[in-house]
Amino acid sequence: MRIVVLAGGIGGARFLRGLKKAVPDAEITVIGNTGDDIHLFGLRVCPDLDTVMYTLGGGINEEQGWGRTDETFHLKEELAAYGVGPDWFGLGDRDFATHVVRTQMLGAGYPLSAVTEALCDRWQPGVRLIPMTDDRVETHVAVTLPPDGTDGTGVTEGTEGPGGRSAAGGEQRAVHFQEYWVRLRASVPAHAVVPVGADRAKPAPGVLEAIAEADTVLFPPSNPVVSIGTILAVPGIREAIADAGVPVVGLSPIVGGSPVRGMADKVLAAVGVESTAAAVAEHYGSGLLDGWLVDTVDAAAVERVTAAGIRCRAVPLMMTDVDATARMAGEALALADEVRA
Amino acid sequence: MRIVVLAGGIGGARFLRGLKKAVPDAEITVIGNTGDDIHLFGLRVCPDLDTVMYTLGGGINEEQGWGRTDETFHLKEELAAYGVGPDWFGLGDRDFATHVVRTQMLGAGYPLSAVTEALCDRWQPGVRLIPMTDDRVETHVAVTLPPDGTDGTGVTEGTEGPGGRSAAGGEQRAVHFQEYWVRLRASVPAHAVVPVGADRAKPAPGVLEAIAEADTVLFPPSNPVVSIGTILAVPGIREAIADAGVPVVGLSPIVGGSPVRGMADKVLAAVGVESTAAAVAEHYGSGLLDGWLVDTVDAAAVERVTAAGIRCRAVPLMMTDVDATARMAGEALALADEVRA
Repeated sequence: MRIVVLAGGIGGARFLRGLKKAVPDAEITVIGNTGDDIHLFGLRVCPDLDTVMYTLGGGINEEQGWGRTDETFHLKEELAAYGVGPDWFGLGDRDFATHVVRTQMLGAGYPLSAVTEALCDRWQPGVRLIPMTDDRVETHVAVTLPPDGTDGTGVTEGTEGPGGRSAAGGEQRAVHFQEYWVRLRASVPAHAVVPVGADRAKPAPGVLEAIAEADTVLFPPSNPVVSIGTILAVPGIREAIADAGVPVVGLSPIVGGSPVRGMADKVLAAVGVESTAAAVAEHYGSGLLDGWLVDTVDAAAVERVTAAGIRCRAVPLMMTDVDATARMAGEALALADEVRA
Repeated sequence: MRIVVLAGGIGGARFLRGLKKAVPDAEITVIGNTGDDIHLFGLRVCPDLDTVMYTLGGGINEEQGWGRTDETFHLKEELAAYGVGPDWFGLGDRDFATHVVRTQMLGAGYPLSAVTEALCDRWQPGVRLIPMTDDRVETHVAVTLPPDGTDGTGVTEGTEGPGGRSAAGGEQRAVHFQEYWVRLRASVPAHAVVPVGADRAKPAPGVLEAIAEADTVLFPPSNPVVSIGTILAVPGIREAIADAGVPVVGLSPIVGGSPVRGMADKVLAAVGVESTAAAVAEHYGSGLLDGWLVDTVDAAAVERVTAAGIRCRAVPLMMTDVDATARMAGEALALADEVRA
């Protein structure tokens, strides 16, 4: 069985751990989001790829869901002592090494897909992990900062991108997704989410081939806008999935009207999608999605999703542990079989 | 009182701490050796500048004499886990931050002298620390590796530079000074020490001016070949010191026929100088050196050094603590006054 999974960070990584447990013999190809990659301190940081790699490779900090286990932050402390920022991004000493190795290999001319494969040689995640593209894509978020010049973080310095004044007096800015997500904690109004560079990006080698050879395509309960949405924004990927002729099944990241984890509701609002399990399914659309799992608390959504032409079931969707997650993955594969039959 | 000190790493840094204690009101300019700088993991590492900065700024690991206090090596452990080397150079997590900041500033276009000044803004070493040059100089050592293909380190992989077979069957190589010093621990025969690039290097801004305005120039008990010798190899520096018309006084790094610390005897042999306090003075020469301090155990050398036209005294030269080092610095300044009078 060949399964292709589009994955963001924590949600995608944890789902994949369950999927591996549910179908240990499956060949799993993970197409990873790189839209939240960021250049920090001269290094290329790929938070989502690393979260998948560390989670499946046994190196993840289980409590926080990202970063390395047994981590220290001495390097970061010292950068702060030098007054060199940003200080809001959590780069641990162990994690830093991954970015150093990646940056060196990129500098030597290897594409990100080859670098990711090399990093996975160490971590042995048990899946084939491919970045969505070897080209540079950076998700930016259009926000309005409060008119008093602060942004609720105690930091008043300028953020990146050209800015302007809105009618309400707040300052409009385009900020890197990580700045919006980590520094501002999605606490300011977001008006648009733009995967800058995606329109000119090409799928990384192996991405389209994996989709073409897949028996099933799964969308884990990852962020539908900035994770899966960004992957789908790379020309060719959405079309390849829609045209693959195999079941495409997703799991709702929204349970009972709010995200299970993270702040997906904020970016859904920015793209005009309500934070409900049904609305996210409709956002993907029946042209892409064949099946959709909603949580049992959202059972009432089944009718609306079905009406939209997407086969839908309500099952427990809380990834409380690996076994519960494996059952979710099993339900997704069962729904795929149902679509296939 | 304006004092210029040419400094390598540990010996120079410890001497400077004593000098500051001896003459707290003096304006001290340190011209630092950059010949043992090395590029590792995409970063510019300046071991001697950092040792001076950390030692005078209170951040040094006192026991080992280099690197940071309260250091961890998690990043290095992870690089090794990725199989990315070299693994023989001790880059700690805290120390790494200095190299990250330096590399970023160099990448932004600042010269090393400006970067060093910025780093010292944090450390406040109490001296003006200037690299000998903003240009790239790398000390290489011509060595013969054992004919069995090993080098006594258990590492058989090739080292840098073109190699050949010597008459004795050993392989001749030019290796970076750090590879000779740290990886090979100066355990293989060295035939030449070449500060590659020094002949085309220019003194960094402020170097010649500081020498011209100095009341006294001091050579601490640093390595006369790869530390002070490399600084003197930058065209203009030796001449400026010789022509400054002020006392130039050195302290012997050789006590009782062997180096107080490190392996200076190995590189002295490579340049054909015997490891004695007198021979090192003669190596500098009376055209450069006005005064020379030898240890009391080398009192017999005073006559030979004096005969070479260099004023010489025998005083205790073991830097056992800051007070002992301050007394050494005081003796050096007293000898300078004697020269001046």
